[in-house]
Amino acid sequence: MSSKAIFYHAGCPVCLDAEQNVALALDQQRYKLETVHLGTDKSRLTDAIKAGVKSVPALVLDGAAYHINFGASIDDLK
Amino acid sequence: MSSKAIFYHAGCPVCLDAEQNVALALDQQRYKLETVHLGTDKSRLTDAIKAGVKSVPALVLDGAAYHINFGASIDDLK
Repeated sequence: MSSKAIFYHAGCPVCLDAEQNVALALDQQRYKLETVHLGTDKSRLTDAIKAGVKSVPALVLDGAAYHINFGASIDDLK
Repeated sequence: MSSKAIFYHAGCPVCLDAEQNVALALDQQRYKLETVHLGTDKSRLTDAIKAGVKSVPALVLDGAAYHINFGASIDDLK
């Protein structure tokens, strides 16, 4: 059974680095990874906020939010 | 060839959660994971600071620091 991982970003350099080095380092046998650009896909903002995402880049693993370094505040993406 | 991952923590609840859900989610075929408790192993502080760790929990992947949420400042562990 695989778990769900959603990587939220906004295309910023900090985001891209975290995607390459953390999100893509996850065990893909266990985690099905989806990448969401909140800068271009505003329709996903509500889900991100509901999961507790306060800044990007962030990784939501099975519904729990993990903020990785700091690229941009979620408030600046609304 | 496997890469090196060091998970720095201080035993705090935020740290333990990040260890269980992010550090242990890494692909262990690609990353050799070491876990360091900076609260009890002060000798590792210098290495952590050199890698850019400013707070725990943090994951250092091939020398680059990724701070995951916020448990404690590195200054409070010195």
